[in-house]
Amino acid sequence: MSNPRFASDNAAGVHPAVLEALDAANRGPALAYGHDAVTERAASSVRRAFGGKADVLFVWGGTAANVLGLRTVVDSHHVIYCGEQSHLWSDECAAPENYLGCKLQPVPTTHAKLTPDLVRAAIQSGPGVHHAQPRALSIAQATEAGTVYSIAELGELAQLCRERGLLFHVDGARLANAAAALQTDLREVTADVGVDLVSFGGTKNGLMGAEAVVYLTPGIVGAAEFHRKQGMQLASKMRFVAAQFEALFTNDLWRENAVRANAAARRLEAGAAKVPQVEIVHPVDANAVFARIPRQTLKRLGERFIFHVWSDHPQRPTVRWMTAFDTTDAEVDEFLAALGEATG
Amino acid sequence: MSNPRFASDNAAGVHPAVLEALDAANRGPALAYGHDAVTERAASSVRRAFGGKADVLFVWGGTAANVLGLRTVVDSHHVIYCGEQSHLWSDECAAPENYLGCKLQPVPTTHAKLTPDLVRAAIQSGPGVHHAQPRALSIAQATEAGTVYSIAELGELAQLCRERGLLFHVDGARLANAAAALQTDLREVTADVGVDLVSFGGTKNGLMGAEAVVYLTPGIVGAAEFHRKQGMQLASKMRFVAAQFEALFTNDLWRENAVRANAAARRLEAGAAKVPQVEIVHPVDANAVFARIPRQTLKRLGERFIFHVWSDHPQRPTVRWMTAFDTTDAEVDEFLAALGEATG
Amino acid sequence: MSNPRFASDNAAGVHPAVLEALDAANRGPALAYGHDAVTERAASSVRRAFGGKADVLFVWGGTAANVLGLRTVVDSHHVIYCGEQSHLWSDECAAPENYLGCKLQPVPTTHAKLTPDLVRAAIQSGPGVHHAQPRALSIAQATEAGTVYSIAELGELAQLCRERGLLFHVDGARLANAAAALQTDLREVTADVGVDLVSFGGTKNGLMGAEAVVYLTPGIVGAAEFHRKQGMQLASKMRFVAAQFEALFTNDLWRENAVRANAAARRLEAGAAKVPQVEIVHPVDANAVFARIPRQTLKRLGERFIFHVWSDHPQRPTVRWMTAFDTTDAEVDEFLAALGEATG
Amino acid sequence: MSNPRFASDNAAGVHPAVLEALDAANRGPALAYGHDAVTERAASSVRRAFGGKADVLFVWGGTAANVLGLRTVVDSHHVIYCGEQSHLWSDECAAPENYLGCKLQPVPTTHAKLTPDLVRAAIQSGPGVHHAQPRALSIAQATEAGTVYSIAELGELAQLCRERGLLFHVDGARLANAAAALQTDLREVTADVGVDLVSFGGTKNGLMGAEAVVYLTPGIVGAAEFHRKQGMQLASKMRFVAAQFEALFTNDLWRENAVRANAAARRLEAGAAKVPQVEIVHPVDANAVFARIPRQTLKRLGERFIFHVWSDHPQRPTVRWMTAFDTTDAEVDEFLAALGEATG
Repeated sequence: MSNPRFASDNAAGVHPAVLEALDAANRGPALAYGHDAVTERAASSVRRAFGGKADVLFVWGGTAANVLGLRTVVDSHHVIYCGEQSHLWSDECAAPENYLGCKLQPVPTTHAKLTPDLVRAAIQSGPGVHHAQPRALSIAQATEAGTVYSIAELGELAQLCRERGLLFHVDGARLANAAAALQTDLREVTADVGVDLVSFGGTKNGLMGAEAVVYLTPGIVGAAEFHRKQGMQLASKMRFVAAQFEALFTNDLWRENAVRANAAARRLEAGAAKVPQVEIVHPVDANAVFARIPRQTLKRLGERFIFHVWSDHPQRPTVRWMTAFDTTDAEVDEFLAALGEATG
Repeated sequence: MSNPRFASDNAAGVHPAVLEALDAANRGPALAYGHDAVTERAASSVRRAFGGKADVLFVWGGTAANVLGLRTVVDSHHVIYCGEQSHLWSDECAAPENYLGCKLQPVPTTHAKLTPDLVRAAIQSGPGVHHAQPRALSIAQATEAGTVYSIAELGELAQLCRERGLLFHVDGARLANAAAALQTDLREVTADVGVDLVSFGGTKNGLMGAEAVVYLTPGIVGAAEFHRKQGMQLASKMRFVAAQFEALFTNDLWRENAVRANAAARRLEAGAAKVPQVEIVHPVDANAVFARIPRQTLKRLGERFIFHVWSDHPQRPTVRWMTAFDTTDAEVDEFLAALGEATG
Repeated sequence: MSNPRFASDNAAGVHPAVLEALDAANRGPALAYGHDAVTERAASSVRRAFGGKADVLFVWGGTAANVLGLRTVVDSHHVIYCGEQSHLWSDECAAPENYLGCKLQPVPTTHAKLTPDLVRAAIQSGPGVHHAQPRALSIAQATEAGTVYSIAELGELAQLCRERGLLFHVDGARLANAAAALQTDLREVTADVGVDLVSFGGTKNGLMGAEAVVYLTPGIVGAAEFHRKQGMQLASKMRFVAAQFEALFTNDLWRENAVRANAAARRLEAGAAKVPQVEIVHPVDANAVFARIPRQTLKRLGERFIFHVWSDHPQRPTVRWMTAFDTTDAEVDEFLAALGEATG
Repeated sequence: MSNPRFASDNAAGVHPAVLEALDAANRGPALAYGHDAVTERAASSVRRAFGGKADVLFVWGGTAANVLGLRTVVDSHHVIYCGEQSHLWSDECAAPENYLGCKLQPVPTTHAKLTPDLVRAAIQSGPGVHHAQPRALSIAQATEAGTVYSIAELGELAQLCRERGLLFHVDGARLANAAAALQTDLREVTADVGVDLVSFGGTKNGLMGAEAVVYLTPGIVGAAEFHRKQGMQLASKMRFVAAQFEALFTNDLWRENAVRANAAARRLEAGAAKVPQVEIVHPVDANAVFARIPRQTLKRLGERFIFHVWSDHPQRPTVRWMTAFDTTDAEVDEFLAALGEATG
């Protein structure tokens, strides 16, 4: 049977400390829907990590964290600019258009990173009623290509947002990996550079199924609590969602997990780069390795490991290999050995 | 601090067997989004329980189980008939209207139970384009008043649905309690009487956060997998949702839990009925006790226990007390003692 | 062939002055989408009639005037209270739920008129996130039963709205008939009593197809111009919608038309009341007559005239007869003669 | 005051025959909502023009004709492919995303014309639930650049649609201009080449405000009548919308008008091409002329005529000049003289 290890960071399991936290939260009855002590503590932890002033709402999934997050800041006659390769544009089965009822505008990128110039070129709507109006910029940090925006790059995008009156949203499904890569904390890479709201992911970083919408700019939370309920993302036994985040912020588990996932990716990259005919196509900043490989390699390696073909090509398809918090060196080495055999 | 024990069956914790199942599912990597062995086994268990032929989709929450479930069978120009006191009408923050874009028609009931006559009286839409068209009947089993439809009553509603071309939907957030009360299994109370689809709840019956949409009538599942993703309810680490259901169907845990919750409610009812001036207002078929109590009782009891005031009244408000799978006799007795003191 | 004269005020034709205005507007090219002199003049006329400060947007149809009008003041987690017999609840094919994504709450009424007590009784939502939140009250003036709210009654409803923080919306498809009946002008019956916004109808009062959303309370117009475009109601050759309103406000044609329609209804009522076994069921304040008639009368009269059966009954169905600006005395008398024959 | 003559074909007035038809339709009462003889005749005329078997629904506006037309064939988890410069993508204020709740995918084009290769390259969605699924191709004929697809080009796109299971939709706001340009009739350019549905425009071709959705493929009309009502596009006095189409199909007025508009554009193109530094940028197949002109020309010409700057450029902006059914040779010549003066 094929090994799903490198198929996705969602293929990873749950960190033991998270299971322990779930067990610890299971002590007798507690009020539902977040009116409990665990949720209060977890929200405080997240808030503190982002600078102390944010509004924090927990949801189950990443699509919801993105879409519901944008709900309070975007009206239906607005445009959200996002990368052409972004999860928001490509991988949400049109959930943003469906739930927000507004326009997404895909912007072509290099290495999945938006720049002020790219966004400026995309903003072509005139001010008239015929055109949905520019309202938000959404970037993924780390990106879907495994690259990471530098603090300086974020600052330039924030500056553009201020100039154009755009809300600055970060799809932070892998924000921990980005912060680890930049050796910053979560606040420096978001609130401090002028990000307005973050969809902060936990699931890809060792949680079971828990994400947080973090509203950094005061007031923008609006009626988000109602939208979360209406958006079908209000957990009744909320303490078991929140407890996961509490674990993630105990002893900086978020960073520990991200550092390990990133390190595994770098190990994988280093090894893969030595294999003839394997070409790394994006900088490996976080926990994803994209490689162009011979078709024959794809065929053989695919018999032992499951991974995604990102863009197909008769001779040299591009594939994606993901690492996670629980990827071991031995697993990477096993994979590299298989890669060598498949190519050799 | 007030005791939330009887505030809701959502105030309960998670059954230990469920936590064990989560732990057991946490063995190395597995494909995300339900392409894993745990999900396959769990879906089989649920399917088998409902007669063997159903399509089964897991989601996180009960609102989603209701709303997404109805998504594939309802178009936006349709009407869904439901009880005026139903969760669907009253407690979903307009999620059905919002996500389905159609009309809900609330129908007044006695003890929260719909009858063919009540539904017939509500179907007043003519056939023309000005009126949203009758399409589905949604009942809760057990109801929000803690009552349970008999098999015969279900059969009559099913017959009405066939006559009028309505899909028959069951909000089964507490279906286990209903089946336990009727001493039937899940199939007899749904598929066998002609129900088309069920939103089958696990969370209120000892799970952490897991519900299943069960499409009993062949073909009606339609594009539900896409709608689940678009509706922000596709869990990436699905095995941890599914594992909860696997636990629920191991050794009929679903029935054991429901029997205990129901028994606790009956104990509570029996004791409360003996307290002077406490009047039970709905038959206690499942795990809820609704009582009309003196205001003074409410004031005093409310200092020690948290529970919902269902309909307020200067002298004799009506309150709701819920039991769950983990409510002990001792807890019930403690509550009854407090009730006696508060009233006496 | 059956005569549609009394089927609806929509069965009426177009007032000659309106056709003349369309012809007059057809003088060479003019900018599209309302950037033309006719639209400017017409908007001024409407604004002036409502007190001089309103924002005015023209749309084609009455459903749109209601639904788009409410769009800028209602969010998806809100409730709009409306009469159970209201057009908004019963005759829009769920357009409000669909476009606004919020909850409509139908309130039972007498003679289709809401009262503060009825609305208060309907507002049962608690403040929590589970319940859509009270936001707007929508009444029809004149009502769908042909009754008219007095100035005092409107004031009481406005007072309730202020107390409860509700926006006060008037479905004014027949506002002209109401103002004529009350012998007031349009401002006295709306802005002066505290109405926030009006969907002001022209089509039922002699126009071809033109309605106006009139935002009386400063600021509530919000992004309505964008919503009108997105809501598919921005006419490209807007001047031909606007010109109809210009005609309507020239020499108070709106009042003249409404007075004639109302008078025809009173003539019809007076005659019908004399026919044995014909029972008028609602006060005939405006241009509708509702009558309970013998089934045999329905059968015979229905062979010569088309009209709606409002509520069926084996022996004594209730029917609706509408008059319009162009209903002549001779037509009424012909109808009454037929009614007499059908009954006698 | 600036002359709006060439700003848009929506700046044109209404053809006198249309006003006459409106007057003729205004003969006493008639049933509302399309249950009248004029509507029946007009629908027959449109049906006949498209081959005799289509379902035909009249609406007021072009946005509605596009969006409501697609409503019955597109589910919310689908993708509609359209040109990056298409009205559907750029000029509907996100109405398609809003009302359909699905994804639009913009495809870059040359001269606003899609080709099978361009569409194939855009279809990158995999079959999984993460991606909205390919469902429809929407082209404009004539295009927004004033170009026209040949019958052969349409056939190739239809072939692609069959291969990929896509519905083939034509935004025919200017279909008459295209048919006139190709010297075909409406059927040859749609039904005969395999188009599934057409949003057929009348307003830009001399009507006051009337469009038709023409469902060519049997069965796809589905519940469109309900969606039209719910979509706020069901005219109560429908006969006055329909009468416009009856006029358009009397003596082939549609063709006469289109031929005149196209001829005016060709006259304009021929004259403009002779002006130094004026460069025509798209083939002038229909009734639009796009030209790159010196900035100084734009400035001076803009003082006398209103027209749209399509893409701005410091030295050589691109502008659009539209002609209509009522554009006279004298008007074109006056414009050309002004162009010469502004440039010279």
